[in-house]
Amino acid sequence: MSEALAFDLAAYLEAERGRVNGALERAVARLRSTLPEPLAPAAAHAVLTGGKRLRPILCVAAQRACGEGVVDASYDMAAALEFIHAYSLMHDDLPCMDDADLRRGRPTPHKIFGEIPSMEAGAALIPAAALQAWWAAGELGCSPERGAAVVAELMKAAGGGGMVGGQVLDLVGEGQAHDAARLDSLHRMKTGALLCASLRVGGLAVGADEQSLDALGRYGRAVGLAFQIADDILDATSDAESLGKNPSDASLDKSTYVSLYGLDEARKRARAQVTVAKAALGEAGIDSAALISLADFIVERNR
Amino acid sequence: MSEALAFDLAAYLEAERGRVNGALERAVARLRSTLPEPLAPAAAHAVLTGGKRLRPILCVAAQRACGEGVVDASYDMAAALEFIHAYSLMHDDLPCMDDADLRRGRPTPHKIFGEIPSMEAGAALIPAAALQAWWAAGELGCSPERGAAVVAELMKAAGGGGMVGGQVLDLVGEGQAHDAARLDSLHRMKTGALLCASLRVGGLAVGADEQSLDALGRYGRAVGLAFQIADDILDATSDAESLGKNPSDASLDKSTYVSLYGLDEARKRARAQVTVAKAALGEAGIDSAALISLADFIVERNR
Repeated sequence: MSEALAFDLAAYLEAERGRVNGALERAVARLRSTLPEPLAPAAAHAVLTGGKRLRPILCVAAQRACGEGVVDASYDMAAALEFIHAYSLMHDDLPCMDDADLRRGRPTPHKIFGEIPSMEAGAALIPAAALQAWWAAGELGCSPERGAAVVAELMKAAGGGGMVGGQVLDLVGEGQAHDAARLDSLHRMKTGALLCASLRVGGLAVGADEQSLDALGRYGRAVGLAFQIADDILDATSDAESLGKNPSDASLDKSTYVSLYGLDEARKRARAQVTVAKAALGEAGIDSAALISLADFIVERNR
Repeated sequence: MSEALAFDLAAYLEAERGRVNGALERAVARLRSTLPEPLAPAAAHAVLTGGKRLRPILCVAAQRACGEGVVDASYDMAAALEFIHAYSLMHDDLPCMDDADLRRGRPTPHKIFGEIPSMEAGAALIPAAALQAWWAAGELGCSPERGAAVVAELMKAAGGGGMVGGQVLDLVGEGQAHDAARLDSLHRMKTGALLCASLRVGGLAVGADEQSLDALGRYGRAVGLAFQIADDILDATSDAESLGKNPSDASLDKSTYVSLYGLDEARKRARAQVTVAKAALGEAGIDSAALISLADFIVERNR
């Protein structure tokens, strides 16, 4: 690829994060008007505090790849994915779960707002995400059928077969070694389900055909697994300061890809998933420099 | 009313409970296939253990009142309301919330399955309810637009402006007296939002017009408030054995309608809400012996 054609991922990510954060501000303003006092600030803190915004960025990238340009409402749609992600982080960090003090370099919601408001604000983000996606689908001019498909996709990922199940399997696995198959299935649920949904929601929102939706789903699952392996590698090689959170899984004595396979083999497996992800796009004729660069970014990021 | 024309509420409730329980068994069977091991039994326990099934019964009654007869799928639709109700009870009973050992005369889910699976199975019931309602809407032949309206109604009630907000306001209020306005608004959120949604979901599912939907909503809010006042009266006058749960609010030093107004005035206020509920139906020309009897039942029940 010549220099002139090279995709400037850093500039792309910065611009996308700006528009995603704008959409999240709008979404949280609407949310605040429906949440009572003890919940609103906890939800706002969780949604608005930093973060890579990877899920919304992937959602918008899928809309770009399969549709005809994006508008503000495309980012409003993507905000629904971040609501679900924020819910999962809030619950993950609770005292009865990972009991984390720090997330994205800042105190976790329960440290500031208390355990109950954090737990309930987290749960309230699930229906809020459904309503946000439904509203954005209307703004995008989706048919009710398409809007409902978007909401169903989101709710499936948020449900027990998705991330929540992965979180619980994860905790149940503390102090016991996971075998490789269990680790894969755990991470597919915990991270993969929502990354996969981020892509498919984007595709559904712009009316992508079945073949493209299938390819976006396979890309999302592969990238989700690569993401989790990369997380394990980061946990094994970083300290809390550069990571912005407590390196937790290894210290909690859970199996990780690194403990199971060693650093080199884990890196190899992450890269193999990136290859799978790119191949899925290629097979469906989805030509997106952003999605290709994002897949690389996911294993090469340093936090 | 002559004897021959009198509505046999006891027989009606028994028959309806049977059909609702059948729909809940079907819904839980579907749910089990999507939930991982630690969550599935907790969710099943919460959904299937006893209960008045008031919300689904009201949902079906609204479908009957505004539609043309009911079928199994009408009860499948109603099951989604019980999912949300079960979620709220699971979270209400958690150690960090009310820390209740007993619910419907049986141990609470967290006593059997642990705190984390109960919290997460509870949260997983929210997206499961959305998917259940969407599926049932399809079975009922609803248009995607109508199906989506049903799901949106359900998610609004499940969100922070609905029950969750009420729960948290309730806990924040422990040990401090609520004034009457705050108590009303708390109970409207905590109980009223889901009862109101039960009625409106039923109406939406059968394509009721705006005037009827509005009347069903007003009926639901009034009946919800009457229900909560009746709960306070029951808490003040019953013991755990006849109630099937720990009489909790008074012992936790929260304001109740009884502590605020005394028994007689509380009873009067409950009956006034029943009158409001019936008037709402009358104004919209909704002729339903079941809904009228159910409104009476809600303040006259003994558990």
